[in-house]
Amino acid sequence: MTGKVKAVVFNEPGKMHVSRFDRPEVDENSVLLKVEMVGVCGTDLHIFKGHLSGVPFPIIPGHEILGIVEELGKNANERMVIYNGPLETGDRVTLVAGIPCGECFYCRHYPHYDNLCTGRKAYGITRSCKDPPHLFGGYAQCIYLLPRTSIFKVPKRIPSEAAVLTEPLAVASRAVERAFQPGVPFSGEGFGLGSSVVIQGAGPVGILATAVAKAAGAGEVIAIDSIDTRLKIVKEFGADFTIDLKELKTSEERINKVVELTDGHGADVVIECAGIPAAFKEGLEMVRRGGKYIEVGHYTDAGPIDIKPHTICKKDVDILGCWAYPRTQFKKSLFLLDSGHYPFEKLVTHKLSIDEAPKAFSIIERKEAIKVAIVP
Amino acid sequence: MTGKVKAVVFNEPGKMHVSRFDRPEVDENSVLLKVEMVGVCGTDLHIFKGHLSGVPFPIIPGHEILGIVEELGKNANERMVIYNGPLETGDRVTLVAGIPCGECFYCRHYPHYDNLCTGRKAYGITRSCKDPPHLFGGYAQCIYLLPRTSIFKVPKRIPSEAAVLTEPLAVASRAVERAFQPGVPFSGEGFGLGSSVVIQGAGPVGILATAVAKAAGAGEVIAIDSIDTRLKIVKEFGADFTIDLKELKTSEERINKVVELTDGHGADVVIECAGIPAAFKEGLEMVRRGGKYIEVGHYTDAGPIDIKPHTICKKDVDILGCWAYPRTQFKKSLFLLDSGHYPFEKLVTHKLSIDEAPKAFSIIERKEAIKVAIVP
Amino acid sequence: MTGKVKAVVFNEPGKMHVSRFDRPEVDENSVLLKVEMVGVCGTDLHIFKGHLSGVPFPIIPGHEILGIVEELGKNANERMVIYNGPLETGDRVTLVAGIPCGECFYCRHYPHYDNLCTGRKAYGITRSCKDPPHLFGGYAQCIYLLPRTSIFKVPKRIPSEAAVLTEPLAVASRAVERAFQPGVPFSGEGFGLGSSVVIQGAGPVGILATAVAKAAGAGEVIAIDSIDTRLKIVKEFGADFTIDLKELKTSEERINKVVELTDGHGADVVIECAGIPAAFKEGLEMVRRGGKYIEVGHYTDAGPIDIKPHTICKKDVDILGCWAYPRTQFKKSLFLLDSGHYPFEKLVTHKLSIDEAPKAFSIIERKEAIKVAIVP
Amino acid sequence: MTGKVKAVVFNEPGKMHVSRFDRPEVDENSVLLKVEMVGVCGTDLHIFKGHLSGVPFPIIPGHEILGIVEELGKNANERMVIYNGPLETGDRVTLVAGIPCGECFYCRHYPHYDNLCTGRKAYGITRSCKDPPHLFGGYAQCIYLLPRTSIFKVPKRIPSEAAVLTEPLAVASRAVERAFQPGVPFSGEGFGLGSSVVIQGAGPVGILATAVAKAAGAGEVIAIDSIDTRLKIVKEFGADFTIDLKELKTSEERINKVVELTDGHGADVVIECAGIPAAFKEGLEMVRRGGKYIEVGHYTDAGPIDIKPHTICKKDVDILGCWAYPRTQFKKSLFLLDSGHYPFEKLVTHKLSIDEAPKAFSIIERKEAIKVAIVP
Repeated sequence: MTGKVKAVVFNEPGKMHVSRFDRPEVDENSVLLKVEMVGVCGTDLHIFKGHLSGVPFPIIPGHEILGIVEELGKNANERMVIYNGPLETGDRVTLVAGIPCGECFYCRHYPHYDNLCTGRKAYGITRSCKDPPHLFGGYAQCIYLLPRTSIFKVPKRIPSEAAVLTEPLAVASRAVERAFQPGVPFSGEGFGLGSSVVIQGAGPVGILATAVAKAAGAGEVIAIDSIDTRLKIVKEFGADFTIDLKELKTSEERINKVVELTDGHGADVVIECAGIPAAFKEGLEMVRRGGKYIEVGHYTDAGPIDIKPHTICKKDVDILGCWAYPRTQFKKSLFLLDSGHYPFEKLVTHKLSIDEAPKAFSIIERKEAIKVAIVP
Repeated sequence: MTGKVKAVVFNEPGKMHVSRFDRPEVDENSVLLKVEMVGVCGTDLHIFKGHLSGVPFPIIPGHEILGIVEELGKNANERMVIYNGPLETGDRVTLVAGIPCGECFYCRHYPHYDNLCTGRKAYGITRSCKDPPHLFGGYAQCIYLLPRTSIFKVPKRIPSEAAVLTEPLAVASRAVERAFQPGVPFSGEGFGLGSSVVIQGAGPVGILATAVAKAAGAGEVIAIDSIDTRLKIVKEFGADFTIDLKELKTSEERINKVVELTDGHGADVVIECAGIPAAFKEGLEMVRRGGKYIEVGHYTDAGPIDIKPHTICKKDVDILGCWAYPRTQFKKSLFLLDSGHYPFEKLVTHKLSIDEAPKAFSIIERKEAIKVAIVP
Repeated sequence: MTGKVKAVVFNEPGKMHVSRFDRPEVDENSVLLKVEMVGVCGTDLHIFKGHLSGVPFPIIPGHEILGIVEELGKNANERMVIYNGPLETGDRVTLVAGIPCGECFYCRHYPHYDNLCTGRKAYGITRSCKDPPHLFGGYAQCIYLLPRTSIFKVPKRIPSEAAVLTEPLAVASRAVERAFQPGVPFSGEGFGLGSSVVIQGAGPVGILATAVAKAAGAGEVIAIDSIDTRLKIVKEFGADFTIDLKELKTSEERINKVVELTDGHGADVVIECAGIPAAFKEGLEMVRRGGKYIEVGHYTDAGPIDIKPHTICKKDVDILGCWAYPRTQFKKSLFLLDSGHYPFEKLVTHKLSIDEAPKAFSIIERKEAIKVAIVP
Repeated sequence: MTGKVKAVVFNEPGKMHVSRFDRPEVDENSVLLKVEMVGVCGTDLHIFKGHLSGVPFPIIPGHEILGIVEELGKNANERMVIYNGPLETGDRVTLVAGIPCGECFYCRHYPHYDNLCTGRKAYGITRSCKDPPHLFGGYAQCIYLLPRTSIFKVPKRIPSEAAVLTEPLAVASRAVERAFQPGVPFSGEGFGLGSSVVIQGAGPVGILATAVAKAAGAGEVIAIDSIDTRLKIVKEFGADFTIDLKELKTSEERINKVVELTDGHGADVVIECAGIPAAFKEGLEMVRRGGKYIEVGHYTDAGPIDIKPHTICKKDVDILGCWAYPRTQFKKSLFLLDSGHYPFEKLVTHKLSIDEAPKAFSIIERKEAIKVAIVP
């Protein structure tokens, strides 16, 4: 590829346009990736609207990236963190957008939890495109990868529409793994064979969490949403029951339904993937005594909700916050995508060219899509 | 002992008097205990005020019981759950007030977590004294123990003023153990050697949790309270720092102080022992990313507080409700009481006769005492 | 059913015959079960040969029991430990042969691990048939169940040939669960999504462990055996690769094969289901650094093997003994049997009448069968 | 410091002499440390005798290093992994001898367990002194630290004789932590408050493991050795009982003693610190059903021992290999050394100059010392 590189730029909150950048020289420690497909995440919309703090505008958004190695610095194989390497030109790869700082308290003490890093910088979110080589986001024909980026080679068998889900699947699989944490639900081991699970919100993360839970041996999975297409597809990904918010309109009705479906106990595990504060409160009533409540839906601050500490104390419940994922989570994503258990590729319901990118957000806001992807 | 048995009775919320009951015949499967000392718990006060739901008035309160075996049914050693048995007349013992039903979902599936039992009935709380043999609470000269009561023999070395703390120490030690749950604070194991701990509220449970945390290898322990006697004694039980609510008057100041004392990170573990909804919100700001927050203070419903699910998600924090304790927790209490590490007996600051019992609550409400005990 | 009850009796090691007993009166706390099918276990053969210590001859063997409630004492529903109860006459059930003593150190402290009980008595193994009501084993037309037996109702959908596998599947699922124990293989959680597993020995337990591992999200599963029918069927139960001992004849070749199949690392988890001391030594070389080695194959003492403590130290490996299962494991068995994931019923390759029972052992010794069942 | 730098060199197995090297130029990414004190480890003796495979002779031994920052490359603070940094000239520090490769399977997947790294190179063990700057071991007046060395600043309060124990204390504390792994001994959490512990071998690691176990809340600790000075000092470090191999001469007697001291059950945790294969076999008989056996004593291959897999299976025991430690373990060492709980400095019983270094091994072999240190 030569000539100019097209990319979507958010200049400031609310301002988006397609720019052209020079194709950069590739440093000996770096990699230039041709973007094959990039997922549109709700966070991208939050960034666009200025609802995410700490975004260094201007930026090129896009952190769910699938690409082809276009050019490889001569030391890149040593300077990157490559899984299933070494890399060669032409390899299809996905990457972890965030690079941990390597120096903060968390990097020093808990290097396996790089999601805790306080200095993590992420392509498409917290790396500006202001300075050369500019191409630090996925809504672009190319992305420029700096040293210490974690890169995963993608098996050929996995269709691109599935492979582009590696990142949201990492979010979902870590959420399910949080429930593995030892404790009551599965004697001594947390979540386990036959555990009942409620998924609040059947958007991409909710659907993927359903699939992960089933792949890990869950029993009954109950998914809750209001959109018919989501309620339908989540069943294909393993949900045994769905609760339609249009039918069971009150919190009380939905809680009662979950209790009824779980022999009167409440669910072993409830995973909040809706991002709505009221769902948090409702979900705490759906989990049984000694159960696990996973909070993975609130990447953006959607405000507070009133909670009784007494409820938490009396239920002896675990509430486990779940922020992003360690980089090794991608390996589990690829394992699941490659397992053939679910028709992951069907989740990409809309594909847009880079010039159509601005349309993506209106599609998301109208909730027509499961997953929108840009094919630059 | 012959003749009448004196006992404090709560006839209905707000009504208390000293009654006399006949000394009961002891069934072949039961035990009659002479109460040597009984602790006055904040829950007793909540029962008296009618703030606890499900109390079957009339009741004899008192569930922190130390006693002497007065009479022993001939099959009692088989029908009770005795630790360090067998029992003989004259043995000094303490007991778990709650008897699990043995039949509910939780008893069937998680028999080691009898605190989850939905049918647990407890002396002094959920057993009425209406029907014979009446003596089902600790504020009495005798208590009548039914089959399946868990009874622990108390080593002679432990002074009675320490032994009477077995139950609140079980509450405290389980709270600390909740933080042992694997996860981030201690690589792979949760709480561990050198972990920093904040104790919100230095009442009996807060003081005892301080001692347990230190005995289990905690690093810096920071205790927060407003009462001078408590702030002083919690240092004797291992607190390295205390924060006086009278000095640091705003939540922000206190949060900043904790962050400062923990090298800018927040504490590895925060244990809420204050029972105040606002403390829950404040404490969540004191725990570091990936840390553990233990909610053990809200045995009674003290109302709601507004919480941002986003905070929980972003911090990747564990919030662990902590309701009572499994019965085996008493063994750890007795181990600690017997270890000689702390002057536990100093915590009983007031001793009252049974006729003086009504005074106990005004002493508690005036916050003059650490622990009030009744010596019937 | 009236008249005499036929049963196989082992009078002493090496002596077996079919006896007839009177149909017993059923006590108000007991249950009489009509045996529908009973699995023949390798342990039964060891008992017959006198290789198991502590067997109180004469006994009626048989502890993998599926039956129909024939008669129900009036208090039986309260005195038994029933899952999915209450029981009614005509219910199809399976049961845990071992009843924990309820009084030993382990029962007092770890009631959820009743497999640790030092006083557990098991139908078909450690209960003599000498005294009335005699019928304390599964190779019989009826079995008499004493109070505190754990009884599980079996969903109608599960064919009897699958339901009769509940017990060996509990052995297998606990073995896999042992690998869930937090530690290295799956960051922070032990066994998990995509973990590689070696199964040494594809007899019933090895085949079932393969199925459980896959149902719980295992990646590559490698099974090792020498018998063609086993090597074939274990693939139907999820094995991705099989190693035939007839082809790779040396330990070194097999170890090298496993290392090759696991990208040079060795397997995350190795489960010893062969019961051969040399397999234990070989398997330790197949597990990777920081991996898990599960020892579930040696229910009988098959002698010693030389092991280097240095290997264990240097590998930082977990070797986890796995003796029987807690009673709640049956619930997971029934969940898996009911999941429809595998053709469990195909594992019962031979069905014999009670009069043909003596033939069962020669079939087992000739290794013609996967599972032999007796249909009394 | 100028002029020549004295160092002990092992030229080949069995050959040792004191050499003089030029003081090296310090690279911008490196650090030159003046060695204040270095511990003599049993492994050093094994290296000298040629019993450790993979040692690239010639080497300067010594990996238990306490030193003063003599010269600091200008980028060293960024290129080293510094705890409690930044570094300045004159700081007193200790360091992790092993530097993980950062690229192997284990470094990629389990970065918090750098002890699993298959490419770890360690000062004093696996770094030759053949090529400049030569000074890659602790038995020297200076050591030259390469980038990515983990360096820990040592609080002033800790005496040098205690600080020099940081490394063996890391070995010991990780061994105790292995027993924290969830499982039976402490309901749901592994080792915990009141657990009974047997320490096989009261050399430096055994004594330090005793101290760690006590600091973490152990109950009864029983230490076993044959040397009177060790049996005496281990009591000062928390052992409640000692078993003298000179008195209880048979394995059976010692096993019976442990069983007797643990109320007939065997110990919750047994830690093998003796490095003798027969101790491994004996220790397995000392641990109770469902207990934990930690193998940390066999850093060197001392040969095999016959073990029954049946014993492991039937006991449902965890045998946990324990190889070195993750680098963060040093933080826990320093916490303990700084806690003032034990007179750690008393363990350094012999101090030698660098010219006396050859005498160190004969002192060790005569078992006169607890810990020998060289003060270069």
